Amino acid sequence: MPSYTAPTKDQQFVLHDLLNIHDAKISGYEDLDRDTTAAILEESAKIAENVMAPLNVVGDQQGCKLENGIVRTPTGFKAAFDEVRAGGWTALDCDPEYGGQGLPYIVATAVGEQFSAANIAFNMYAGLTHGAYSAIHAHGTDAQKATYLPKMVNCDWTGTMNLTEPHCGTDLGLMRTKAVPQDDGTYQISGQKIFISAGDHDLSDNVIHLVLAKIPGGPEGIKGVSLFIVPKYIVNEDGSLGDRNGVSVGKIEKKMGINGNATCVLDYDEATGYLLGDMHKGMRAMFTMMNEARLGVGLQGFAQAEVAYQNAVDYAKDRLQGRDVTGVKNPEGPADPLIVHPDIRRNLMDQKSFIEGGRAFIYWGAFMLDMAHRNDDKATEGLVSLLTPVIKGYLTDKGFDYAIAAQQVYGGHGYIEEWGMSQYARDARITMIYEGANGVQALDLVGRKLATDGGKHVMAFFDLVKTFCKENADDDAMTDFTGPLKEASKDLQAAGMYFMQNGMKNPNNALSGSYDFMHMFGLVCLGLMWGRMAKAATEKLAEGAEDAAFYETKLATARYYMARQLPMTVTHLRRIESGGDTVMALDAEQF
Amino acid sequence: MPSYTAPTKDQQFVLHDLLNIHDAKISGYEDLDRDTTAAILEESAKIAENVMAPLNVVGDQQGCKLENGIVRTPTGFKAAFDEVRAGGWTALDCDPEYGGQGLPYIVATAVGEQFSAANIAFNMYAGLTHGAYSAIHAHGTDAQKATYLPKMVNCDWTGTMNLTEPHCGTDLGLMRTKAVPQDDGTYQISGQKIFISAGDHDLSDNVIHLVLAKIPGGPEGIKGVSLFIVPKYIVNEDGSLGDRNGVSVGKIEKKMGINGNATCVLDYDEATGYLLGDMHKGMRAMFTMMNEARLGVGLQGFAQAEVAYQNAVDYAKDRLQGRDVTGVKNPEGPADPLIVHPDIRRNLMDQKSFIEGGRAFIYWGAFMLDMAHRNDDKATEGLVSLLTPVIKGYLTDKGFDYAIAAQQVYGGHGYIEEWGMSQYARDARITMIYEGANGVQALDLVGRKLATDGGKHVMAFFDLVKTFCKENADDDAMTDFTGPLKEASKDLQAAGMYFMQNGMKNPNNALSGSYDFMHMFGLVCLGLMWGRMAKAATEKLAEGAEDAAFYETKLATARYYMARQLPMTVTHLRRIESGGDTVMALDAEQF
Repeated sequence: MPSYTAPTKDQQFVLHDLLNIHDAKISGYEDLDRDTTAAILEESAKIAENVMAPLNVVGDQQGCKLENGIVRTPTGFKAAFDEVRAGGWTALDCDPEYGGQGLPYIVATAVGEQFSAANIAFNMYAGLTHGAYSAIHAHGTDAQKATYLPKMVNCDWTGTMNLTEPHCGTDLGLMRTKAVPQDDGTYQISGQKIFISAGDHDLSDNVIHLVLAKIPGGPEGIKGVSLFIVPKYIVNEDGSLGDRNGVSVGKIEKKMGINGNATCVLDYDEATGYLLGDMHKGMRAMFTMMNEARLGVGLQGFAQAEVAYQNAVDYAKDRLQGRDVTGVKNPEGPADPLIVHPDIRRNLMDQKSFIEGGRAFIYWGAFMLDMAHRNDDKATEGLVSLLTPVIKGYLTDKGFDYAIAAQQVYGGHGYIEEWGMSQYARDARITMIYEGANGVQALDLVGRKLATDGGKHVMAFFDLVKTFCKENADDDAMTDFTGPLKEASKDLQAAGMYFMQNGMKNPNNALSGSYDFMHMFGLVCLGLMWGRMAKAATEKLAEGAEDAAFYETKLATARYYMARQLPMTVTHLRRIESGGDTVMALDAEQF
Repeated sequence: MPSYTAPTKDQQFVLHDLLNIHDAKISGYEDLDRDTTAAILEESAKIAENVMAPLNVVGDQQGCKLENGIVRTPTGFKAAFDEVRAGGWTALDCDPEYGGQGLPYIVATAVGEQFSAANIAFNMYAGLTHGAYSAIHAHGTDAQKATYLPKMVNCDWTGTMNLTEPHCGTDLGLMRTKAVPQDDGTYQISGQKIFISAGDHDLSDNVIHLVLAKIPGGPEGIKGVSLFIVPKYIVNEDGSLGDRNGVSVGKIEKKMGINGNATCVLDYDEATGYLLGDMHKGMRAMFTMMNEARLGVGLQGFAQAEVAYQNAVDYAKDRLQGRDVTGVKNPEGPADPLIVHPDIRRNLMDQKSFIEGGRAFIYWGAFMLDMAHRNDDKATEGLVSLLTPVIKGYLTDKGFDYAIAAQQVYGGHGYIEEWGMSQYARDARITMIYEGANGVQALDLVGRKLATDGGKHVMAFFDLVKTFCKENADDDAMTDFTGPLKEASKDLQAAGMYFMQNGMKNPNNALSGSYDFMHMFGLVCLGLMWGRMAKAATEKLAEGAEDAAFYETKLATARYYMARQLPMTVTHLRRIESGGDTVMALDAEQF
């Protein structure tokens, strides 16, 4: 049976030693001193470890069941959900006007890491609600906000996002769901939506569906899409629940993972819907939440690697197999623990250096989102928009890879469901797909974000790297880190240059390299994070910090990252510079 | 519902255009002309496509059930198994003396590709039998061979291999299962074995377990392990089945995949066993089958990528989503098919170039095994022994990666079990683990095989590459291929040199790079295969071959491989040359 221990010390290292959130001049960060974040993270850790983690395997094994039109979640989910709601954990970064706690997004991110690692499927019920909450908060009328938000903040009512239809996911312009205007200002929504996470369940009194649909007679394609609020139960004037609306669960999908979450086919049959935001501007309304949602998925992917890693380390220390080739390490026992073997080390160091670097990256992203929103900082908003597809794409691809790597440490036991490692891999797999498949993230990065505002955000990123390297140029202790980082950053710049010079001639030259570029960018971002973490650790050691071993570990892991992970940029660059011709050479029938 | 179409044309390209098996001077190859292999592969294709493939999803969904001590296989497995047996498909490369067809291993490999792609779990019942058959064939007494082999050749009786115990997999010296000698020359076997594939089932009349166990008083550790035949039903003198032996199924494991195959815990309680081969030489007996078994697992891994790729291509041609950025390709439709998009191409070309290169590599391996065994060619035996961990490790790692990549083409549909792509990935996952986890393959390669016979086999490999490049140095059409191959081969040599120079000082310098080296070696092997395939295609085109498009496709795919896959050696080399220090820097408690 796998377990989870919240890495609060590592989390605090990123929050305070790396990002210095206690000193950040961001509105709402005033109270985020070390004691406060420690108090929050220790409380959330209890929930993650004791309430959520024990239900992770249960959710996977039982899945959700559709019985007479009613969706039943796995045993224990309802009680746990009530405990989480009662503790205020769904309301952390919500607006105090509607009952939220008003904490910055970075706090929600740190807590979210713990929750996602402990039980991703369970946390999606609140996660989707938060997405719907944000949409209504950003685009709703005062009346809509007053009706829905107070109930959604604490998950009395949960929410969903309805985009996909059987024939369209990425290309939502093909959408068929219709919204027919009624005399009373409402709309009748009809159509089928699929892959609706947390689409229905027995955890809350009402489910507030946000549904994209087309109003007949509107513009063709994506420009004719509007967003609607479609509650499972109609809400009466007085706020009480009225009639069942015309939305029903067609089926629950049988999936590779996240079985504890009900992924539903939802059939809308003249359901009553209320326009949210402007007519035909549904995509824009969706997009305002996109950065946050994609960061959230990046967090999920990375978190699966984290919990898988923890368990792999325990197993590697515990399992006796073979002897250390440089000399017996466990003479009392029949064999040495797995962790003495260099290839097991290589595997665990890959995981560790990714996980700690990934955490820094995603917390930095959350930090920038707070700065953008709370300080209305446009430059930072541009930078975090640029990096969002990297966070989503890179952290989920690698999160999955390292969940697989952790599973590998277990040998045959990793393949047996009883040990739980398969579930982490199967659960992580979805994060590469939903909220925009990673190929679409790469396209967004190279086809859109790179050139935004004349390319000034990517230049700002390179300046960050350059400045960091320059600031530490005279520090001998730092050249182990700045050297490789500078080199990798140059590779990334060269790739960007290649796109500029050759993408004009033929966009396929750029788009054929988009996936490599996304990964390359991720590598350099983690390189920057490791450089900064090495700096922070060096300073702590110079200050004579108490827990020297902790900071030494950071330095050793940073060195590993520079030596073994970062050089991957070289291959990515080679691929990119080979251009689009070999990629596009075949006719479709030659495949 | 996924489907499978046997790629007989591609298979024949490798057999005849690349390997020229019809001209090979190998004993038993005399009749392997194009018509013969075509006839065999077309017949086996019918079985793979029509009998096995339709049961793939069934096996996954139903799994195997243990009912009152009896293992029930999924619906349809028994009838299909009978059809396969009746067709002689289990006897292809078995000894004619015992009812086999005496065909070379390369034919069994080509047929095995089809069968594994169509239904890996189903084919493991015959596959494990073949392994047990080979062990008895190599090490059995005449009486043992006469008793068991005729029944095992056609799978009237099936076989298993019992190595792993709960506390030991890789390190079999820790084994606890005991074999106590009896006065009548038999042994009483007691202990628990786990992860026994095809461990029990309702497909055959008897199950012949080959069991590793220790005879009390023998040498400590791995040197005291012997191999025993332990039939489920004791075989009477006259060959009829007698009493049930003391072996029972403790449970069937719930696994990530290959659910159609019963992975059993087997409890031996004073079961009657017969010594197979010499006392205390059980590991040696096992090892004689190792190369073949590991090649077989490499084949399984690669085959899952192949079938997943086929389906991904179909989906990419069928699914309409978005428009080609260089101009609309499907003006009549609401969108263009996925396959127009560069990143989908990149993904499919990665898969295609791996699969076709991987096929060539593994068929070459089978070809060399035949040459080694049938022509008693020691040099070739040394080379194929060297390459076996590469075939197993690289082809299964990449086979899994590309099954995941194929799943990604489906977007959300890839995550839904109904579409079948998840199963290919879940099934492929085991191939990285069993028959020696891939980390152990890397260790075998770097820690043992590289230095075997004074390193002469790895030198022979480099000579092959060098000779190929030299032979084609003056051919302008070939420099696109020989150039990158030469460069990658140099990287591989440099890595080997690094090990030699630094592994003596500290073996961790070599073993920390073992995994990278295994992958690097795989890349170069596929590079050599693609070089040779390009050469063969060029010659065919020069001859004015009928199907020019087929050969042009090979050339284009070879170019893709050289441009986009092979440069990965650069990063592997960088990692290796960074040495073992960063890998081994942490104490166990720092993880």
